[in-house]
Amino acid sequence: MENKKASTKTKEIDINAVSTCEATKQMLYKAKKDGVETAFDRALNMKACPIGADSACCKHCSMGPCRLNARDPYGKVGVCGATIDTIMARNFARMVASGAAAHTDHGMSMLDLFREVVNGKITDYEIKDTIKLKAVAESVGIDTEGKSVKELALALYDELEKTYTQVDGEIPFAKRVPAKTLETWRKHGVVPRGAMREIMELMHRTHMGVDQEYKNITNQCSRTALADGWGGSMVATEISDILFGTPSPISIEVNMGVLKEDQVNIIVHGHEPNLFESMIASVNEPSLLKAATEAGAKGINLVGMCCSGAEVLVRHGIPHAGNFMSTETILVTGAVDAMTVDVQCIKQGLAKVAECYATPLITTNPRCHIEGAQHIEFHEHTPKDCTDDIVIKAISRFKNRTARVEIPKNVNIGVHGFSHEYINYMLGGSFRSSYWPLNDNIINGRIRGVAGVVGCTNPRVKQDYVHVELVKELIKNDVLVLQTGCSRSPCPRLG
Amino acid sequence: MENKKASTKTKEIDINAVSTCEATKQMLYKAKKDGVETAFDRALNMKACPIGADSACCKHCSMGPCRLNARDPYGKVGVCGATIDTIMARNFARMVASGAAAHTDHGMSMLDLFREVVNGKITDYEIKDTIKLKAVAESVGIDTEGKSVKELALALYDELEKTYTQVDGEIPFAKRVPAKTLETWRKHGVVPRGAMREIMELMHRTHMGVDQEYKNITNQCSRTALADGWGGSMVATEISDILFGTPSPISIEVNMGVLKEDQVNIIVHGHEPNLFESMIASVNEPSLLKAATEAGAKGINLVGMCCSGAEVLVRHGIPHAGNFMSTETILVTGAVDAMTVDVQCIKQGLAKVAECYATPLITTNPRCHIEGAQHIEFHEHTPKDCTDDIVIKAISRFKNRTARVEIPKNVNIGVHGFSHEYINYMLGGSFRSSYWPLNDNIINGRIRGVAGVVGCTNPRVKQDYVHVELVKELIKNDVLVLQTGCSRSPCPRLG
Repeated sequence: MENKKASTKTKEIDINAVSTCEATKQMLYKAKKDGVETAFDRALNMKACPIGADSACCKHCSMGPCRLNARDPYGKVGVCGATIDTIMARNFARMVASGAAAHTDHGMSMLDLFREVVNGKITDYEIKDTIKLKAVAESVGIDTEGKSVKELALALYDELEKTYTQVDGEIPFAKRVPAKTLETWRKHGVVPRGAMREIMELMHRTHMGVDQEYKNITNQCSRTALADGWGGSMVATEISDILFGTPSPISIEVNMGVLKEDQVNIIVHGHEPNLFESMIASVNEPSLLKAATEAGAKGINLVGMCCSGAEVLVRHGIPHAGNFMSTETILVTGAVDAMTVDVQCIKQGLAKVAECYATPLITTNPRCHIEGAQHIEFHEHTPKDCTDDIVIKAISRFKNRTARVEIPKNVNIGVHGFSHEYINYMLGGSFRSSYWPLNDNIINGRIRGVAGVVGCTNPRVKQDYVHVELVKELIKNDVLVLQTGCSRSPCPRLG
Repeated sequence: MENKKASTKTKEIDINAVSTCEATKQMLYKAKKDGVETAFDRALNMKACPIGADSACCKHCSMGPCRLNARDPYGKVGVCGATIDTIMARNFARMVASGAAAHTDHGMSMLDLFREVVNGKITDYEIKDTIKLKAVAESVGIDTEGKSVKELALALYDELEKTYTQVDGEIPFAKRVPAKTLETWRKHGVVPRGAMREIMELMHRTHMGVDQEYKNITNQCSRTALADGWGGSMVATEISDILFGTPSPISIEVNMGVLKEDQVNIIVHGHEPNLFESMIASVNEPSLLKAATEAGAKGINLVGMCCSGAEVLVRHGIPHAGNFMSTETILVTGAVDAMTVDVQCIKQGLAKVAECYATPLITTNPRCHIEGAQHIEFHEHTPKDCTDDIVIKAISRFKNRTARVEIPKNVNIGVHGFSHEYINYMLGGSFRSSYWPLNDNIINGRIRGVAGVVGCTNPRVKQDYVHVELVKELIKNDVLVLQTGCSRSPCPRLG
């Protein structure tokens, strides 16, 4: 019934109101003409469950799903007796657990790769930044004196593995936490033991009949979140820098206009730098370049989107085409000859849009298959088997392009890649690198602080609008802004 | 609005229809007279969300919550494009992840205790079953020759810790899996690496934008479930037997009639044997027994409920009062002087019922606090500090009993404690212990198989009815039945 209603009275989006991105809007007009649906359309036509949106529903056991009323929060409890406080804390905790699991599982993958590289079992990657290797090793208390790169790397692997596997004690990067902060964490019992244990315990505690006191649940949320930020995520960043190089500022083209009508366009969208690094090798493979030329293309144009796009943007100067809410619309250009994805933020809706434009959508990670996509598994031991195959598929699609191609002309320039190592260097040079000038100006009040603006975009809110307005307001008030993730994308685009 | 409706038109339960347990029913009549609400009432008055009950809603990200229609399953997709197949697989997977986390976290707690006992840091517990210690060590390939109990235990700890922490390879108990079965598991890639890694990966894969192919999600569900059954849960069982003794059959009183009006009644409800073992020590403490007598009691009556009750029932012959759906109603007797809980299946509703009868409800585990309950933390290094305190609180409540006491007369006898070690012994004696007679009778068809009937009871279904009817039907058809958990409870009660 509900479905019938929805399909008979499909509401149309107001294209100018849903995004601040001119290229995305242009593509939404084309999508409308082509009869293609995107998440913008689905968001408008999917009424969010009002009880769920208030976090007043609980489906954690088979006695429910129970629904309370957020406007009369204490008037009712769940079948087990759970109050609105318990239910909301549990729901929030499950979000923390899955978010931490996503980052941590990604970090563990990076560490798996690092181990195999160091052991010499994987030869397509290597340690690129030995200075960072040494610095990270020292930061966790490893004696680096007289150790070879391999010895140092092995010792670091052993130490960082504890971030995930340890069941007692404190995670290695707790050693980096400022003393006063660490003292507070200890006082509240929120220093993480190991990321996997915290996630497991949080999942346990949010089960029916376990933790039913919102403050106690929230405490474990903090511990798990710290295990993510100071554990899973931090390891992922450090290992990526060691393996693929630490970024320094670079000026790069962004926006959909980086697609080239006369080239084979390949988009990489996801989160794992190893796939993208191998894609770079494949698009530079002479035999594949020759094949592209023979198919009538002027070259192979590799373009990034989302977070894995951001990683290679700062490391290799690969152009970046847009964020989460532009991944469907870019396919509408008709110019994408292959979109390859790994994990996280890959909308299932991509499969249908890709099908409309005969673009191969290729999943590569064993953790992420998509119905309707082709799966070509990426193995780190033989990475080019997968990425070469993707390039071949893209060339073939280029040769047989049937879809009408329309590429927005929008191209902007952004300077990216402010790693904390670079900032440290920049502020004092090689011999006196330091955060002193920054600290000093914060202390004297000329800079009122540093704000990190991160996070994604959601089709229920005008694309990028909030991120950009927030950044403008912060800068206006003399606050330095650091950005990453999808939030980073719109600022260079909007100048 | 919804709440107002519910509270003005509260429906009354048909007491005879909601349970097969006479004692519980008697107490539901008393609860009605006393104006006390239980989960039976709440279940009748809480309409389960029809979309959630069909598993057709998804609240895994902030673009939703999205609602599909299970009667027109393919007519609509979520905002991200997730189909009903993806959504249902994800919802199921989250249940698997939280169930596995609960068992695994419990198993890890048992292993933590074991480590500290072996290291001599905990002295209130000891290794009770050295034969089982040796057998378990051998089953995971440890060379037991010439090793002391301590050496053996340390080696076993190191090996079993891998069940939780390992990030690669196969969990230790994979060595116990029948060769043909293991081969099938390997073929499908579902041999668990380590329980925590599988849980983490499943949480990652069920995030928005990761795994969106129901078969692939379900595969990781299998791997995680095996990490529970052949990992977390199995380690918990083996370690409990080693620390507290392997059960053998024993005839014990069950049902609510085990409460004694003239004694201090203490109920332990939950899942961790260490709390219960310490409670046994505390109720036998001469000074506390004396205090009880001085308060006018004829003794201290320790009673178990739910799973931790089942553990001490088979190990120490402690009477068992009932299962999950009787934990609120037993408080209605007015005879419970303290109910102490640890983790899992502890309804938050207990707090209100306990308050009505001035029964102290005491939480003991850092993972489980309950609003309105007293928290006395249980530390394994000094367990009696907590359990002595509980006994004192119970004696004080006995002395000041004000609630009208009404204890159902129902007492039944059940024979429990069929560990697989005992069955092995029973079927062949000391010298020829073997499963041969059982296997032979299954092969020749006189026994048509062995069925495990386990699981809980739900106020939306007549208490215990399905479990009992299923067991009757199986026995009628020459199928041997093994039971544990809440499902085990009603059969002796119903003769």
